[in-house]
Amino acid sequence: MSGASQPVRLERVRRVEDGSATRQSVADAVAVEEPLEFRVAAGDGPFVRTLTMRTPGHDVDLLLGWLISEGVISSVAEVDRVTARSRGDGLEREASVQVRLQPNAVPPADRPFPVSSACGVCGADSLAAVLGQARWRLADDDCTVSTATLLSLPDRLAAAQAAFQRTGGLHAAGLFRVDGTPVVVREDVGRHNAVDKVVGFAAREQLLPLRGHVLQVSGRASMELVHKGVMAGIPILSAVSAPSSLAVELARASDLTLAGFVRGSGLNIYAAGERVT
Amino acid sequence: MSGASQPVRLERVRRVEDGSATRQSVADAVAVEEPLEFRVAAGDGPFVRTLTMRTPGHDVDLLLGWLISEGVISSVAEVDRVTARSRGDGLEREASVQVRLQPNAVPPADRPFPVSSACGVCGADSLAAVLGQARWRLADDDCTVSTATLLSLPDRLAAAQAAFQRTGGLHAAGLFRVDGTPVVVREDVGRHNAVDKVVGFAAREQLLPLRGHVLQVSGRASMELVHKGVMAGIPILSAVSAPSSLAVELARASDLTLAGFVRGSGLNIYAAGERVT
Repeated sequence: MSGASQPVRLERVRRVEDGSATRQSVADAVAVEEPLEFRVAAGDGPFVRTLTMRTPGHDVDLLLGWLISEGVISSVAEVDRVTARSRGDGLEREASVQVRLQPNAVPPADRPFPVSSACGVCGADSLAAVLGQARWRLADDDCTVSTATLLSLPDRLAAAQAAFQRTGGLHAAGLFRVDGTPVVVREDVGRHNAVDKVVGFAAREQLLPLRGHVLQVSGRASMELVHKGVMAGIPILSAVSAPSSLAVELARASDLTLAGFVRGSGLNIYAAGERVT
Repeated sequence: MSGASQPVRLERVRRVEDGSATRQSVADAVAVEEPLEFRVAAGDGPFVRTLTMRTPGHDVDLLLGWLISEGVISSVAEVDRVTARSRGDGLEREASVQVRLQPNAVPPADRPFPVSSACGVCGADSLAAVLGQARWRLADDDCTVSTATLLSLPDRLAAAQAAFQRTGGLHAAGLFRVDGTPVVVREDVGRHNAVDKVVGFAAREQLLPLRGHVLQVSGRASMELVHKGVMAGIPILSAVSAPSSLAVELARASDLTLAGFVRGSGLNIYAAGERVT
């Protein structure tokens, strides 16, 4: 595999069925995970560089969405130019997206080494920073969504997922209007990447802040996903699985409607339930 | 909630059943996610600091395991002293674990800001570094495990999970001997944290390198988990769900046996299948 990477790849695996009774070599579809380097500079200044692991595809949207999540930009008007490059294969593969912001932009600062999946806050001096960072007030968004619409979104998300059903290894994030109209669905081995790709798409389409929209995710709702929703001005986050305690706290503090365990005919509402009718 | 945090907390939620027919306020068990600061220094040198999000519990093991995963230490003999502290609550909660390594140790360096869940490689200059970092050669470990034992581990893991069945929000990692004997099971909102807690426990018990052991995880196998397995000398990684493409590549390059989709009576073997009998 060279040139553009695919999000899914076939691997030869040994399949064991019925305990040890049957063994066969089969081709299994595996979700591709590859490194991508981000390079971000203000004007002609030096690049700040970082490495992320992601599923190939929509790399530019991934970086744009991440810059919005981090509070570096609030609109693509703050981006001067973007360049994407890739070469090589697998562990040796090198891919990068390079962004030059407008000269007056403040690029993401170097931070101490972080360790967690919640990199939305990694290295930040304090979690209170998350609350002070938002450019839009979700409390001003008085849109509503019906429980019937919320309950329909997981199936709509699954229907739009091209790769998940083949690999079982990709998280999905979908943006919908509150009447259930789909806007965009993205997939990635990292749930936060899937959300950044959605937000980056919306930024390119000049849709920010995403008033009157629902972000539906295929798995759990961590604090990081709530943070990304807040930064993109999304008033409603709906998760197929469980939220964490900090996700609930941040949603309540930010007036973001948080639904969890949205499955079959039931769901839980953890925060800002006044938007759910 | 003050003092020691619990891994699970009850939240008041609005429950919708059967579409919009029934609504009630119920107490829902939510997995706790809170910030923890790591402070690491060599001897009396300055502390390198970082913030991670984790489920409270086994914080010292989490930091020890992470230091092993990062290649900073290979044994607790390299640790001089450890101090854990916490105060406050929720978003305002401050908890830290402080480690002073032996004076000749090299603490983790500052790295550029990272963005990904795959923080095992975040900020590393190249992925090849992962392969060069290991202190033990897995190829020298000729232990074997039966498919019957591998197929039994997900149920043994679930049985040992105290919190998962209540919240649906915690990942679990369990260490077993190749005959299926359980050694330790840990849970966390972050799958990499659950593995670090297991590795930190094993390090304190002087069990490293973990020859003849299987690491069973409740979800997917990312490259990061394979990396952590390699760094702890664990020859076999078994996942209930899918591996990523880089997980497969790194496992093959490291002679780590990688099993995926270990469910019911079937499983897939992606790498180093000679250990599976």
